[in-house]
Amino acid sequence: MENSIQRIKAIQLQDRVVEAKTAASWIQDGMTLGLSGFTRAGDAKAIPFALIDRAESESFKVNVYSGASLGSDIDKLFAEAGIVNKRLPFQADPAMRRKINEGDMLFVDHHLSHTAEWIKANVTEPIDFAVVEALSITEDGMIIPTTSVGNSALFVKHAKNVIVEINLDQPELFEGIHDIYDTGKQGERSPIPLTKADDRIGTIGIPVDLEKVRGIVFTRQEDSPSPIVPPDAETEIMAGHLLDFLRSEVRAGRLTENLAPLQSGIGSVANAVLNGLIDSEFTGLNVYSEVLQDAVFDLIDAGKVDFASSSSITLSKAKMEEVYNNFEKYRDKIVLRPQEISNHPEIIRRLGLISINTALEFDIYGNVNSTHVSGTKMMNGIGGSGDFARNARLGIFVTKSIAKDGKISSIVPFVSHIDHTEHDVDVVVTEQGYADLRNLAPRERVNLIIDNCMHPMYREQMRAYYEEALTRGGQTPHVLEKAFSWHTNLAQTGSMLQKETVKA
Amino acid sequence: MENSIQRIKAIQLQDRVVEAKTAASWIQDGMTLGLSGFTRAGDAKAIPFALIDRAESESFKVNVYSGASLGSDIDKLFAEAGIVNKRLPFQADPAMRRKINEGDMLFVDHHLSHTAEWIKANVTEPIDFAVVEALSITEDGMIIPTTSVGNSALFVKHAKNVIVEINLDQPELFEGIHDIYDTGKQGERSPIPLTKADDRIGTIGIPVDLEKVRGIVFTRQEDSPSPIVPPDAETEIMAGHLLDFLRSEVRAGRLTENLAPLQSGIGSVANAVLNGLIDSEFTGLNVYSEVLQDAVFDLIDAGKVDFASSSSITLSKAKMEEVYNNFEKYRDKIVLRPQEISNHPEIIRRLGLISINTALEFDIYGNVNSTHVSGTKMMNGIGGSGDFARNARLGIFVTKSIAKDGKISSIVPFVSHIDHTEHDVDVVVTEQGYADLRNLAPRERVNLIIDNCMHPMYREQMRAYYEEALTRGGQTPHVLEKAFSWHTNLAQTGSMLQKETVKA
Repeated sequence: MENSIQRIKAIQLQDRVVEAKTAASWIQDGMTLGLSGFTRAGDAKAIPFALIDRAESESFKVNVYSGASLGSDIDKLFAEAGIVNKRLPFQADPAMRRKINEGDMLFVDHHLSHTAEWIKANVTEPIDFAVVEALSITEDGMIIPTTSVGNSALFVKHAKNVIVEINLDQPELFEGIHDIYDTGKQGERSPIPLTKADDRIGTIGIPVDLEKVRGIVFTRQEDSPSPIVPPDAETEIMAGHLLDFLRSEVRAGRLTENLAPLQSGIGSVANAVLNGLIDSEFTGLNVYSEVLQDAVFDLIDAGKVDFASSSSITLSKAKMEEVYNNFEKYRDKIVLRPQEISNHPEIIRRLGLISINTALEFDIYGNVNSTHVSGTKMMNGIGGSGDFARNARLGIFVTKSIAKDGKISSIVPFVSHIDHTEHDVDVVVTEQGYADLRNLAPRERVNLIIDNCMHPMYREQMRAYYEEALTRGGQTPHVLEKAFSWHTNLAQTGSMLQKETVKA
Repeated sequence: MENSIQRIKAIQLQDRVVEAKTAASWIQDGMTLGLSGFTRAGDAKAIPFALIDRAESESFKVNVYSGASLGSDIDKLFAEAGIVNKRLPFQADPAMRRKINEGDMLFVDHHLSHTAEWIKANVTEPIDFAVVEALSITEDGMIIPTTSVGNSALFVKHAKNVIVEINLDQPELFEGIHDIYDTGKQGERSPIPLTKADDRIGTIGIPVDLEKVRGIVFTRQEDSPSPIVPPDAETEIMAGHLLDFLRSEVRAGRLTENLAPLQSGIGSVANAVLNGLIDSEFTGLNVYSEVLQDAVFDLIDAGKVDFASSSSITLSKAKMEEVYNNFEKYRDKIVLRPQEISNHPEIIRRLGLISINTALEFDIYGNVNSTHVSGTKMMNGIGGSGDFARNARLGIFVTKSIAKDGKISSIVPFVSHIDHTEHDVDVVVTEQGYADLRNLAPRERVNLIIDNCMHPMYREQMRAYYEEALTRGGQTPHVLEKAFSWHTNLAQTGSMLQKETVKA
C-alpha cells in the first residue's frame, strides 16, 4: 500500500485510511447508505462485502440507495443476508428480485433522474453514509470516480459521512473523463449549459467537504463484466427493422444520416440494435445515454460514433480488457456524467434524443410494460427508460414478439402493468417488423401493431379480441372482462394461446 | 369597419381584409387547419363558423389542430357537421366526444407540449391554413394574440397560409402581455433562458411572413365564458386536505410559505383547490400554469399571487367582465406564453412546480386514469397533465372519492386506463384525505390510499381484494382476473359496490 497512498493527493486525508471491516463497523442498524454503482460499474465493493460478513454474526438492516444496479453479486448477497430494508431506485438481481416479490424487502422503483430531486428535497431518508468508489482524491479534495458516476456526487454532497473506496484495479486513465455538474435546488437553478453531447460543463471530480470523509479504504477488484450475449438471428432482424425505420425518417426529411444523439438501454437487445449500426450508412453519430455497452466502443472503432456521453461504462470481460488497454484512443471521445444530467428532461428534450429501450410486453394501443411479469412480479425496474421515452424525440421500444417458445406473446390486449403510456411510445419494434404509432388515434394503431409486430401464431386471436372490443365502442375499445385473459390463461394453462379462437 | 382597419398597422396588409365566407372558401376537403384557441380562450371564431355553414351544402373533411379545447361550441358544431377527419391534441365537448367514441372521427390525444415537436419535425400532416385570432397586427408585421397563445405561433410559422381574425371585442389592453419564444429545432437549441415565472424571453407578438397572410377577417365575438361551478362543500374539504399536505411540507423544511410555482389544471375542482389558498397563510405565490381560471385573479386581488404565467385566460362570465374592466391592475402581473413553453419539461423541472390536476380514477398503487371512462370512452384528453406530472416537483392528483351517488368508486383495484403511472404520481387527494406516495414501495401505498382516500363504503371491498392479491405475491400484488371486476360490475349491475364482500 506504500504506492497506493499517493492516490490520496489531499495529504490531510492520508491518515484516514482504514480497513474495510473498521469502516463497515460504523454503519448501524436503520441507517441509509448511498452507494456508488450504476449498471454494475464503479460500485463500492469493500464496504458492502464487509457488511455482508457482519451479517453472519449480527442482525441489522439498512436502506440501500445507488445509481442503478450493483455488480459483484452485491445485490444478491445483500438480499440473501437479509440486511436490506429498502432498495432504491433500481436493481437487476434474481435473488433480490425474489425477496422483493415475496414482500420481504421494500423496493422503490423510480425514474433514475428523479432520485436526485428527492434527495435534494429531503423526501428520502437522510443519507448516513455515502460509500463511493474512486480512482483517487485530488490535492484540492475532489473524488475522482471510476467507471460510473450515477448518484455518487449527490450522495457525497448530502451524506453525513463519506467513505471512499480507492480501487487500485480500476484504470487510472479514466481520470479526466468525468464531468460533475450540480444543478442545485429547484427554483434557484440556471439553465444547464449543455447543448451538445460532447459539452463539458463541470469538474473532473466530486467536490467533498473533507471533514465528512470518515474513512478511506483501498481495494483491488475489477467491475463485474457485463453478461451481454452476442446478437442472435432475431435481434439482428430487429436491428434491421429499426434501421429501416430510421431510413424512412431520413427519406421523410426528419433526420439526416447523422441521426440524432442515441440513447440505448441496458441489455442484449439494445446492444444488438446498436451493433446493427456498424454496417449501416449512418455516420457522424453521437451517443447521449446512461450506459455505454460493448457496441458503442465497436461503433467508435468503426468510425461511426464521434462522441459518447453516459453515466457509466459496462462491458463484457473481453471488451473491458480491450478498452482499458487501449483507452488513449477513447478518452477524448467519452464523458461520464451524473445520472441526473445523463437522464435530465431538459437535456433529453433539447438534444432531441432517439431513445431505444426494451419492453417486457406492449399492447395493441402502444402502452408498454417494462417491469412487471404478469403485472405483479418485478423484474428489474423502470430505470431510465421513462426519463428518456417521455422527453425524447423518438421513444422506441423493442422486444421479441414471443417468449418461452411461443407460450407468451409479448403483444397483449392490455398490458398487465404500465410503465410507458400510449402518449410516450412512438415506435414499437419486434423481429416481425415495426409500427410507427405517431400521430395515430388508438383505433389506427391496432391493425398496424397486429400486422407488423405480432407473431403470426397470435394474430387471429388478437383480431378476435379486437373485433369483440369494437362492438363495445370507445376511443380505446376493450372487452374489460377479457383484457387480462391472455395473462390468466398463461397462469392457468401455461400458455397465452387459446385452444380455439372463437370469433365474437 | 373604418376604425377597425387601424388594427392592421402593417399597412401593406390592409387590402387583405375579406369576409369570413370568402376566406373559408379557400379551405378544401382534406386540408389540415391549425386553429388558435386554448381552453375556450382566444379561439378563431369566424372561419370555423363559416366552415360549419358551408357543410350544409357541401361534403368535406378537414384535420383540426388547436392549442387545446375550443369555445363557442365550435367543437360541438364541427362534430355535428361531420367535417372533422382528425382532431388533435385536446377537446372537451360532449358531442365531439360522442363522435370520437363511436369511431366516427379520429382523435389523437396528445401531451400539450409535444404537438410543437411533431409539427416542427413534420410528423403531423403539413398545416395548410393557420387561422388565428388577434387583437391587431403591428407595423413590423407581428400578430398580437388575444386571450390565449396555445400553438398559434407554431401554426403561423409552419402553415402554408395564414388567416388572421381580428376580434374587435377582445380587450385591447391585452397587447403587451404575450411573450412569444421559439425554441427552434431539436439539436440546434440553446437553453430556454427562463428561470422565474415572470421572466420575459420573447416578443409581444407572433412574427409572420407577410407573404403567407392570405386574408384578414374582422370579428366581434367574446370568448365563451367558463362554466366553472363554485366550490361545494366537498371541493372545499379537498382544498383543505391539500393545504394540510402543503403545510406538512413546510414543516418538513421542503417548502417555504411562498411554496413553489403552482400549476393547476382546468376544471372546477382545480379552481376550488386554488380558491382554498385565499384564506391560507401562504403568500408571495407564483403561478406557472397552462390556464388561468377565476381563482388566480381572486388570489391576485387578495395579494397572495405576485405573478401568473400561463398559455390562456379562461374565466366565468362575471369574472371576465370584472377582469377586463380592471385590467390595468393585472397587466404587469400576467404573461401568456406558447404552450410549448408553459408546458415545457425544461422549465417545469427547473422551476420545480407544484402540479395539481384532476383524476377520473386512481388505483391502490397510485396509477391515474385522467381520460377514459371505464377504460374505453374518451372524456376530454390528457391535456397538459402529463407534461406537468412527469417533470414537476410534486405531481398531485385530486378527485372526489365516489361519483354517481356512490355507484362509482374513484379508487379502484386497477385503473382501466393509465395516463400517469405510479412513477409520476406523488400525492393523491380526495375529500376523505390525502396520501403522500413518495418514497413508498407499492405495498406501502395500499393501506394509506384505502384509509386516507377511499370512501368508507368501499374500503372493506378493497381490503378483501388486496388480501386476496397478497396471496399471489409480487412487488405489486393483483388478482388479474378480478382487477377490472369493479368496472365490469358497474357495467352489469349499475354499481361498483358488491352485494356482499366475501373475504378471500
